[in-house]
Amino acid sequence: MQKIFWPAEAVPKAFLLDNQIAVLYAADMGQSFSFSIAATDGKARTGVIKTPRGDIQTPAFMPVGTAATVKAMLPENVRETGAEILLGNTYHLMLRPGAERVARLGGLHKFMNWQRPILTDSGGFQVMSLKTLRKMDETGVRFKSHVDGSEHYLTPERSMEIQKLLGSDIVMAFDECTPFPATKKQSADSMRLSMRWARRSGDAFGNRPGHALFGIQQGSVFKDLRAESAAALREVEFDGYAIGGLAVGEGQAAMFEVLDYAPAQLPNDKPRYLMGVGKPDDLVGAVMRGVDMFDCVLPSRSGRTGQVFTRNGVVNIKNARHADDPRPLDDNCTCPACRQYSRAYLHHVFKAQEIISSMLLTWHNLHYYQELMSGLRDAIADGRLNEFAGAFHEQRLMGDIKPP
Amino acid sequence: MQKIFWPAEAVPKAFLLDNQIAVLYAADMGQSFSFSIAATDGKARTGVIKTPRGDIQTPAFMPVGTAATVKAMLPENVRETGAEILLGNTYHLMLRPGAERVARLGGLHKFMNWQRPILTDSGGFQVMSLKTLRKMDETGVRFKSHVDGSEHYLTPERSMEIQKLLGSDIVMAFDECTPFPATKKQSADSMRLSMRWARRSGDAFGNRPGHALFGIQQGSVFKDLRAESAAALREVEFDGYAIGGLAVGEGQAAMFEVLDYAPAQLPNDKPRYLMGVGKPDDLVGAVMRGVDMFDCVLPSRSGRTGQVFTRNGVVNIKNARHADDPRPLDDNCTCPACRQYSRAYLHHVFKAQEIISSMLLTWHNLHYYQELMSGLRDAIADGRLNEFAGAFHEQRLMGDIKPP
Repeated sequence: MQKIFWPAEAVPKAFLLDNQIAVLYAADMGQSFSFSIAATDGKARTGVIKTPRGDIQTPAFMPVGTAATVKAMLPENVRETGAEILLGNTYHLMLRPGAERVARLGGLHKFMNWQRPILTDSGGFQVMSLKTLRKMDETGVRFKSHVDGSEHYLTPERSMEIQKLLGSDIVMAFDECTPFPATKKQSADSMRLSMRWARRSGDAFGNRPGHALFGIQQGSVFKDLRAESAAALREVEFDGYAIGGLAVGEGQAAMFEVLDYAPAQLPNDKPRYLMGVGKPDDLVGAVMRGVDMFDCVLPSRSGRTGQVFTRNGVVNIKNARHADDPRPLDDNCTCPACRQYSRAYLHHVFKAQEIISSMLLTWHNLHYYQELMSGLRDAIADGRLNEFAGAFHEQRLMGDIKPP
Repeated sequence: MQKIFWPAEAVPKAFLLDNQIAVLYAADMGQSFSFSIAATDGKARTGVIKTPRGDIQTPAFMPVGTAATVKAMLPENVRETGAEILLGNTYHLMLRPGAERVARLGGLHKFMNWQRPILTDSGGFQVMSLKTLRKMDETGVRFKSHVDGSEHYLTPERSMEIQKLLGSDIVMAFDECTPFPATKKQSADSMRLSMRWARRSGDAFGNRPGHALFGIQQGSVFKDLRAESAAALREVEFDGYAIGGLAVGEGQAAMFEVLDYAPAQLPNDKPRYLMGVGKPDDLVGAVMRGVDMFDCVLPSRSGRTGQVFTRNGVVNIKNARHADDPRPLDDNCTCPACRQYSRAYLHHVFKAQEIISSMLLTWHNLHYYQELMSGLRDAIADGRLNEFAGAFHEQRLMGDIKPP
């Protein structure tokens, strides 16, 4: 492939490789981090997060690149789906290949060949959920690596250091994700520890122009604890605010109940990020409640297990009904899996456990998610979000097309 | 991605997707199968096989797409490596998804999204090597599917039918690949059975303009049996001739000994195809002995096991020496794995068992093989094949670059 130096607007989207985009916007690298809202519709907002590595249209979905790769995808193809930012997992990267090593190699963007923005989580969620926890106290968390059994110590200060070594554009404060269910006392104690860690994260992060630090609201399903958490975060003055401790088993109804009030407790003029969410209808419901950013492994993980997201709901490609079906997954979809392959082919390569199955289905799912976000952004801008959501739910209720 | 209708010569190679190429040469679909030699250098030849689905520059290497996919590669990326023809395995495709099913779905090219030529083997080799054989007699072979245990019967006539259903451009005669070692008596009996099957294959294939049928020479390592086999095949008048029964454990020296005389026993004006070969130095040695076509799983399989082919020999990416190496696999290589990623990254994703490791290393290996073939073709055309081969061997003897 050859290098292109045409102006960005003259280059067809499919030909834009990320290195080339990097060249095109290298002139803007002095720019700082900002968020602006272009339009609102009810509680929903659409706008843009500006970073030195590129703009992020909101509401935005961030594909998960746990170990410096969005599984089964080349980064230029992730970009082709419409993704403008990836999430990297501090926990996985600190254990393998190691944050200091990534820094020596020029940072995570260069390492994984993704020049656009990267958000990294703080490592806290995985330490606590992967049952590798050894000891947690006021200072931090001691744990054992799932890779080689080595001992590690994660604190707010070390988490900030690791995320800096990785070169993350949006750094997350180190917190404890309160498990669900938890008593009010447990939820309050956990939230207050996270708020002390949030302040330490802010102090350790310091002033890094062009890089953002997001705080994370906790408080489980208790409105007053969520309010207390939001007030504590506001004092630190973060560049953005995540809503944490949801999508941990409470179910969509309970999650939406919290989202009915939690976003409004956070500053209106900063991005709001719902961590680890979710299914397509979770995204629609959360956007309508004022959320701007999401991440989830669901589209990529489902791509590897044969679960496909379409306008008509979830299609299970391993089902025998697809074996002779010459039609695409979704005849309205413009992703390569839908433009170039039949359901019969996708069924065949899934059954034969061919790697191309994970490649094509992940591509489709990420494309579907990005198209959904694009549709939500346009609907908000046009003041027709309710109609959009209504059509979205109606189409899903129709179910998959009948067998041929 | 958008459709392009520019003239082929105006489109940069990297932007040519196969559908578009299909559009570009659709006008030539009436053309028949032919082979012409443009230049020779010693026993080596370079030329072009013309087919209605596109030209194949020879000497050519065919990546293996066993189950309707070159493992871990999108077909447009296989094309980008320079491949002009793929090999599909009749045995695997007849069992899953089934030849009749592929035919109903429009043929193998459409099914797997590869519009250029496809060569299919006859199924015989896998039936006999995968130990699923139940009973072989003069008529054919009865065997059990490794997928679901179902019984199947493969004969020259059924093999021709299956390859027709698949829509193969180059069809291989049904034969028995004589195991190694074999006594002269065993080799003669096996070869003569294959020659009777070759005639039946020719009769069953009939006259199919634009499609080619290749015969397969057997005779193990016995010169007179190889001559007898060649004479029998010549009587059928095939469109091309494969040299079978090599690369089955006899070693490179014994293989080259056969290749010192076998190609000359076959018609000079038809393509000669050495089946299942091989390592890079096998290809160089075989081209110098007059072979025009090759197929082998080695570059793709090695890509999945971390074995990388470079100008300096084989690199094992899982070796810890690569963990901190910021350099590409080969700084002269233009494949995406070399242009966009460090050895440190490739080591990391291999160790983390990420799918992108198979994707990038397979891409590199296929690219290396195609570059090698391109280098051989140019060297033959320029009459400097001996110098090319000398430099090839010298470079490999230098070994991999020193750790940083």
